[in-house]
Amino acid sequence: MIILCRTDLTPAQRERILAEIEGLGFEAFVRTVGERTVIEGPPASSAARCEVERLAGVERVFVNEPGAHLVTHDHRSEPTLVRVGDAVFGGPGTLVIAGPCAVESLEVMLDVARAVRDAGACVLRGGAFKPRTSPYNFAGLGREGLEILAEARAETGLPVVTEVMDTRDVELVSEYADMLQIGSRSMHNFPLLTEVGRTRKPVLLKRGMNATIDELLTSAEYVLAGGNEQVVLCERGIRTFERSTRNTLDLSAVPILAERTHLPVVVDPSHASGRRQIVPSLARAAAAVGAAGVIVEVHTDPSRARSDGPQAILPDELTQLVRDIRAIDAALAPSSLAPSSLASSSPVVPAPAEHPDPEPVP
Amino acid sequence: MIILCRTDLTPAQRERILAEIEGLGFEAFVRTVGERTVIEGPPASSAARCEVERLAGVERVFVNEPGAHLVTHDHRSEPTLVRVGDAVFGGPGTLVIAGPCAVESLEVMLDVARAVRDAGACVLRGGAFKPRTSPYNFAGLGREGLEILAEARAETGLPVVTEVMDTRDVELVSEYADMLQIGSRSMHNFPLLTEVGRTRKPVLLKRGMNATIDELLTSAEYVLAGGNEQVVLCERGIRTFERSTRNTLDLSAVPILAERTHLPVVVDPSHASGRRQIVPSLARAAAAVGAAGVIVEVHTDPSRARSDGPQAILPDELTQLVRDIRAIDAALAPSSLAPSSLASSSPVVPAPAEHPDPEPVP
Amino acid sequence: MIILCRTDLTPAQRERILAEIEGLGFEAFVRTVGERTVIEGPPASSAARCEVERLAGVERVFVNEPGAHLVTHDHRSEPTLVRVGDAVFGGPGTLVIAGPCAVESLEVMLDVARAVRDAGACVLRGGAFKPRTSPYNFAGLGREGLEILAEARAETGLPVVTEVMDTRDVELVSEYADMLQIGSRSMHNFPLLTEVGRTRKPVLLKRGMNATIDELLTSAEYVLAGGNEQVVLCERGIRTFERSTRNTLDLSAVPILAERTHLPVVVDPSHASGRRQIVPSLARAAAAVGAAGVIVEVHTDPSRARSDGPQAILPDELTQLVRDIRAIDAALAPSSLAPSSLASSSPVVPAPAEHPDPEPVP
Amino acid sequence: MIILCRTDLTPAQRERILAEIEGLGFEAFVRTVGERTVIEGPPASSAARCEVERLAGVERVFVNEPGAHLVTHDHRSEPTLVRVGDAVFGGPGTLVIAGPCAVESLEVMLDVARAVRDAGACVLRGGAFKPRTSPYNFAGLGREGLEILAEARAETGLPVVTEVMDTRDVELVSEYADMLQIGSRSMHNFPLLTEVGRTRKPVLLKRGMNATIDELLTSAEYVLAGGNEQVVLCERGIRTFERSTRNTLDLSAVPILAERTHLPVVVDPSHASGRRQIVPSLARAAAAVGAAGVIVEVHTDPSRARSDGPQAILPDELTQLVRDIRAIDAALAPSSLAPSSLASSSPVVPAPAEHPDPEPVP
Repeated sequence: MIILCRTDLTPAQRERILAEIEGLGFEAFVRTVGERTVIEGPPASSAARCEVERLAGVERVFVNEPGAHLVTHDHRSEPTLVRVGDAVFGGPGTLVIAGPCAVESLEVMLDVARAVRDAGACVLRGGAFKPRTSPYNFAGLGREGLEILAEARAETGLPVVTEVMDTRDVELVSEYADMLQIGSRSMHNFPLLTEVGRTRKPVLLKRGMNATIDELLTSAEYVLAGGNEQVVLCERGIRTFERSTRNTLDLSAVPILAERTHLPVVVDPSHASGRRQIVPSLARAAAAVGAAGVIVEVHTDPSRARSDGPQAILPDELTQLVRDIRAIDAALAPSSLAPSSLASSSPVVPAPAEHPDPEPVP
Repeated sequence: MIILCRTDLTPAQRERILAEIEGLGFEAFVRTVGERTVIEGPPASSAARCEVERLAGVERVFVNEPGAHLVTHDHRSEPTLVRVGDAVFGGPGTLVIAGPCAVESLEVMLDVARAVRDAGACVLRGGAFKPRTSPYNFAGLGREGLEILAEARAETGLPVVTEVMDTRDVELVSEYADMLQIGSRSMHNFPLLTEVGRTRKPVLLKRGMNATIDELLTSAEYVLAGGNEQVVLCERGIRTFERSTRNTLDLSAVPILAERTHLPVVVDPSHASGRRQIVPSLARAAAAVGAAGVIVEVHTDPSRARSDGPQAILPDELTQLVRDIRAIDAALAPSSLAPSSLASSSPVVPAPAEHPDPEPVP
Repeated sequence: MIILCRTDLTPAQRERILAEIEGLGFEAFVRTVGERTVIEGPPASSAARCEVERLAGVERVFVNEPGAHLVTHDHRSEPTLVRVGDAVFGGPGTLVIAGPCAVESLEVMLDVARAVRDAGACVLRGGAFKPRTSPYNFAGLGREGLEILAEARAETGLPVVTEVMDTRDVELVSEYADMLQIGSRSMHNFPLLTEVGRTRKPVLLKRGMNATIDELLTSAEYVLAGGNEQVVLCERGIRTFERSTRNTLDLSAVPILAERTHLPVVVDPSHASGRRQIVPSLARAAAAVGAAGVIVEVHTDPSRARSDGPQAILPDELTQLVRDIRAIDAALAPSSLAPSSLASSSPVVPAPAEHPDPEPVP
Repeated sequence: MIILCRTDLTPAQRERILAEIEGLGFEAFVRTVGERTVIEGPPASSAARCEVERLAGVERVFVNEPGAHLVTHDHRSEPTLVRVGDAVFGGPGTLVIAGPCAVESLEVMLDVARAVRDAGACVLRGGAFKPRTSPYNFAGLGREGLEILAEARAETGLPVVTEVMDTRDVELVSEYADMLQIGSRSMHNFPLLTEVGRTRKPVLLKRGMNATIDELLTSAEYVLAGGNEQVVLCERGIRTFERSTRNTLDLSAVPILAERTHLPVVVDPSHASGRRQIVPSLARAAAAVGAAGVIVEVHTDPSRARSDGPQAILPDELTQLVRDIRAIDAALAPSSLAPSSLASSSPVVPAPAEHPDPEPVP
């Protein structure tokens, strides 16, 4: 039996719970997880569980293996709206995040950023710290890349999302980014999840290529347990036997996640497929399946990209894609998949170029 | 070196090819595959290959492992249109095939068939021979089921597609069905593929849950090699580690197949997911990704279905789904994914109820 | 509720069971599966199930989805011994089945067969009907291949196992083979399983590359339900994301199957790995993990094999392998993995060359 | 073209290489990776590559994607021997690492450690920092756990291996552990790999459950690039569709890795299977397939373990297992799988209890 306590647990409530566990002949283990107290008791009978669940200060009792709670509809019945600059994920419409795989130079970044803004996307992506399979690959520009991203934001008004891979870099990346990306390979990096849970930055949490949907949710739970509820989940393909695509995009995850969590879900067809030619059709499918957004790689000159060029689409393709996605959104608007709550009057429309910078940039 | 010959190969051309192989110091093996002669020669140098490829009567030379040829754009540059009754797969729009998992009784079948027709679907599905994991499961009504299907067709005017599992049943099923379904578990049943290749019935070939996209194409090649070019491919989910859905629907297969074959591709979200709740959103995604059709299970009383009840949607849901799919088709009509060639003026509209029966029914 | 009846079910018992179902307000469906009557009743409460289970003539009641029964320890507590010529699978020691992938010519076959016998293997394998991904590949010599196998048996005294793929060929193959192989791609070919269940030939049932261990057992159940209990299961690798080997050999399946079934289990490292270099070490691992046997491909000239040459080991390697396996068997003999029941005094030793032919050969 | 330079690269050699790249009309990117300089040049023709490869100071040129080099036989032809206390991985025989999943208390740890020593294992394992799917699970005792491990080492003389998950903890864990474990979920945590590459502690690098064999090697390359060549690889099961075991143990990885790397490979049957009952047979298979060692979870009272109890074997089972492994090693000793080079006269025998502590313990 694992007892998740409420954030407003009082010392008296805590004592009462511990006494209950002791009454079962067991010395409780007490831990702090993010903002909450977690109490480990003995294997529980249903009766004992019911007793404990009724105590003040108890949020949830897990009988066997603990799982997710804060991310579920049990904890929060309304959809969570995640605000990144003027973009609101989880409201109506399918938002578009776009940008190059890696930040390579100021010049290229500004070129791409303007194209992204002009195409109608509303968040800019770009990696300053890149996870790479081989140590000899280009792994990003680091702090210099963050500074370039900040300039691209200043120039275009688009908020930026960028990856953080190391617990030691969370503070640094938070100074520059509007949204922290946890990459696929880090979804099971629990110290990192804990660390971003301590910030109050929106988080883009990508599903591990080997992770089940439930594991994606328990990873998100790490962030929410730290008190950071601004989490967007991202389906980006899972590893299967099929090799025509780099990974197999699991679009079923979108409606399944809608059943299990109040968090918005976006889809990354670029990393899933690894092939520019099919990115637009997969992005359209993501809109039709009900995703809150898509994140695509775009480049003004994919053949010269230092990372993942073969999967980047061109600015013109992005423009057409944004149009197609809006057409699908409109076609399905009266249908059941459209969330009803609105966070702002028109979140799909990107911020104007004069949008004031929402984060301090050194 | 494997040499695939043309169907109009003359004896003289054949002699010339064999002489060429002999000239390489190798005694050729000659086989007949469907309508074609296949000649197995020695491992080939590029030069030798070029020589052979130039000979009259040679359609294609495979250097190492032979693969697919007749299904590729190399063999046929136009999209193949597959006609099933009045429905034309491969033309514009996303067609809907619907019906119960298994044919259970005349009464239920007629109920469902009318609902399918009224919802706007254009082909009726239903299993008379059902592959079942356990031998103690209901495995379909067999010939009685085929007769029920024929009555449902007579009543509604909808053409019917139904599965054949045994080489010994191909003739029987062909007497009743408008389209022969090769199920996922039979995709690697090469004698069966050969047998349906000998018929001139349209074939619905489902991807094996363990099969790569290229293997789906080589299985289709078996049918085309027999002279039957009326094949529709079907993506129906692959087996992965994820268990929230029965299989993982691989929608990327649709645009990938469009790059590799002239055959139309439909999507089966019912078997892929195994969960009624997410079938409509996956079917919408299939339309948006560019599928030629979807095949969904529908039942008037899913809780009483003898097979796969949990994945069947209700008639009302089907009606809404057909509407959503048409809306997506319309929204994307000017986009690049819409095939330009039209097979008939309006293939999406189902045949009227008085549609004359295209196949003799006992 | 699915009721599996005993083979000696009397008409009176049957009536009694049907009356019980009727008493639950449900009209039972009655089917014949192999040698047994199967009765489909309504969804069952535990109480109703207990009532039915007590009735005479009832072997087993499945509450939800039916699964395997005859293959389990519930049905038979002793290990099943499967006799193929003088070889006994399921007794002590790890038997070796060896031979070429495909039967190519009498000369090559006799060469390989003598090498197999001399190395100490006790069953000869070789394919006359070969499942091939592409229709243009060599698919075996058919009846001619069976005749060659019969000559190899006459020459060496080794019993032969060969694959059957088509229900229409079961009778023919049974005339020649001592053991019928159901290949990986046919594990879900239910009509074929039913057909071999009607014979009284030992069956070598290979796990599908996409099949779970439980599905392998329900496929074996098809054969046992037909009254044929001489089934050897074969682990031959499953399809995963890893591509260094053709498939991933799942050796855990051997001890897991030992927990779930009384049938012997052999391992095929040749098809699993697709690489000659690692076949011997995997075969040693199979012996150490407790397999009843291994099946390996061997060829006197792998570079000239018309099928799967790269995975065939040489006769000398086979000789060393048989030695290593016997050493492992001896080293672990007093350990818990050695079955205690002996079927014959020395099943590991192959039959002498003058072994009389156990099957009529035309 | 990515150029990996030698550790003894001189400034003049570097200039020469950069000039060569410049001569190709490209401005080179220069990075430092661990102890080495890496130079990124333009896409290379074969001719250009050959030119560059001939230059002094160049260790290896990768044409397209860079991969592993330092871990391969190209870089080092002799097997690497990894010394952990008196244990030498990579020499003859199969070593046994054993201990509880998590360090729970001093009392339990000492109990288990004595049992591990008495059974004949030669390294003690135990987790002080535990990666856990849910944030509410017991995640280890942290520094207190490390101190308990140090006491267990002092008591038994066994060197200890324990996991490090966070770059910020590498220094702390290195103070206590004889070997640093990188867990399956961290195999793609590149900052962590870089950090342990800076230490001179032996590293136990577990294969990610989603990682290919080649990716395991490129992750090891991160450590070697830092100058730390004492790396033991660990196969611990990959994620597949099969659910009878937690993961699918890929024993083929052992001989495949032997072909590709000079690093020793051990096998973890406990985490792979998740089921105590089959751990011993899988460990025997690991010995037979040629692994340098096995790592198994053992507990004196598995039912009370706070983590992974169901997969821990009992001390008696461990004793039998060590005996079986030695028997297999002896049976196969003259066979080809036994490495010929000896690091010490008898590495299998564990250190005596009075073994002086090889690492300073606070």
